[in-house]
Amino acid sequence: MSFSTASFSTVAIVGVGLIGGSVGLALRERRFAKRVIGIGPRLATLEVASKLGAVDDFTTDLAAGVRGAELIVLAVPLVLIVETARQVLAHCATNAIVTDCGSTKRTIVRALTKKSVADGAVFVGSHPLAGSEKSGNAAARADLFVGRTVVVTPGAGQTAETPVVLQVAEFWAALGAMVVTMSPTDHDRALAGTSHLPHVVASALTRATKRGNLLLTAGGWRDSTRIAAGDPELWTQIALDNRAFLLAELRRFEKSLTAFTAALDAADPRKLTKLFAQAKEIRDAVGS
Amino acid sequence: MSFSTASFSTVAIVGVGLIGGSVGLALRERRFAKRVIGIGPRLATLEVASKLGAVDDFTTDLAAGVRGAELIVLAVPLVLIVETARQVLAHCATNAIVTDCGSTKRTIVRALTKKSVADGAVFVGSHPLAGSEKSGNAAARADLFVGRTVVVTPGAGQTAETPVVLQVAEFWAALGAMVVTMSPTDHDRALAGTSHLPHVVASALTRATKRGNLLLTAGGWRDSTRIAAGDPELWTQIALDNRAFLLAELRRFEKSLTAFTAALDAADPRKLTKLFAQAKEIRDAVGS
Repeated sequence: MSFSTASFSTVAIVGVGLIGGSVGLALRERRFAKRVIGIGPRLATLEVASKLGAVDDFTTDLAAGVRGAELIVLAVPLVLIVETARQVLAHCATNAIVTDCGSTKRTIVRALTKKSVADGAVFVGSHPLAGSEKSGNAAARADLFVGRTVVVTPGAGQTAETPVVLQVAEFWAALGAMVVTMSPTDHDRALAGTSHLPHVVASALTRATKRGNLLLTAGGWRDSTRIAAGDPELWTQIALDNRAFLLAELRRFEKSLTAFTAALDAADPRKLTKLFAQAKEIRDAVGS
Repeated sequence: MSFSTASFSTVAIVGVGLIGGSVGLALRERRFAKRVIGIGPRLATLEVASKLGAVDDFTTDLAAGVRGAELIVLAVPLVLIVETARQVLAHCATNAIVTDCGSTKRTIVRALTKKSVADGAVFVGSHPLAGSEKSGNAAARADLFVGRTVVVTPGAGQTAETPVVLQVAEFWAALGAMVVTMSPTDHDRALAGTSHLPHVVASALTRATKRGNLLLTAGGWRDSTRIAAGDPELWTQIALDNRAFLLAELRRFEKSLTAFTAALDAADPRKLTKLFAQAKEIRDAVGS
């Protein structure tokens, strides 16, 4: 795939936290937009985003903020994406493109794709795999998306080659990301295993740790439980929105864990070594 | 507890990999030993340790290497500790202290404590919680133990106040570690939950990840599976040596995981949020 050097004149970012703030910083540093407008409900947050250099201008007025933008990036909490997108689509230019940063895609894309095609302005779902247990724009970084995967998920009536889908892919690539295009369902099925399952497992592991033993935790525990510090409300939303696929991945994990437990119960060194080696081989393929 | 500024004249390190090499670097940087001798089966490894500045001198002859040492630190693979310690105790000075770095303690301490008391030279078990998915002395660092917990485990006839136990505690404290003294059984029970369980869980999670989805993994997956890159043989030895406690921790984890699965199955947002929040509270208490 080759990318054009096309850039946008005005990009509006709704929600200037970790992800939205980083989009702003990256856009301005790479001069991919002439003007970046930050939009959000709290003036204080917008002022911080402005001081950090993430936006050229800001407003708490959603309708006014999106009016002149060619691209609107929604970086609001998962449960607010559909409602926010509907408001944006009602007030933005008819040739505008709206995308999001939500961790699940089926519900969002289904709710928004038809609507947007009818209106002229178009919604294309995105998911930058660049979340963190951190939040807030103080943690925003211009290089947050560099080398990270961003999934773009065409909806009804769109394919990977639809011009607006390509434009959204180019946008993320311009911020340094590796862009993968796949259907919202394929996205949700895959992320259930690579993101949502690890979160539940890390949380269950953390919750199983006796408080009196926390002094006896080391780097291994800290690494494997780090994501359990994520926002409980957000992860509840993600887990429920992707419930069926996540339950399937949990069954898959339980089967994998049972293999270890059975080998340990049987005190079988060959079987245990084989299981650890299978895991190591997959882990080594990814790198640190 | 207050520590004396006592130091050792000669310290011998058997096994100069990540842990042994780091002990040597730390001892020499902090001038806590006048002379550090590296001992191991492979001359090439010893030569690297010498070039890195981890040892003053080295030998492949165990008996000759430990002869003049006041403290001998065993940093050999878990399964070799008891046999190596027996050889060391047979050749070292009668007033020497021998300690180890093994990840489990009951088996080792039981096998060695009586023996050492009879011989004059004394074994005291240690476990520096400073392992890594990395290995080899190229990864050794003088500050590996700074701020890390080291557990010292008195055996039969020893308490936390026994002079040789205090000397081993002082040794690790001199390398910057926080020293905790507890019985070998208490150590193994606690570490089953804080170290061995996370390793099995991370390995089971890694093994449950579909290879075709590895491109769709992000920081969360990488953090929570990092330790699965550890040495399969070593972790088989640890798991089997601590089998009963680890099986108990696996049951505890499965119970915790079942709570999440049940809440998700019931699509219960309040229950899910509560579970994620319980995990977050524990995780936040530890820090990044």
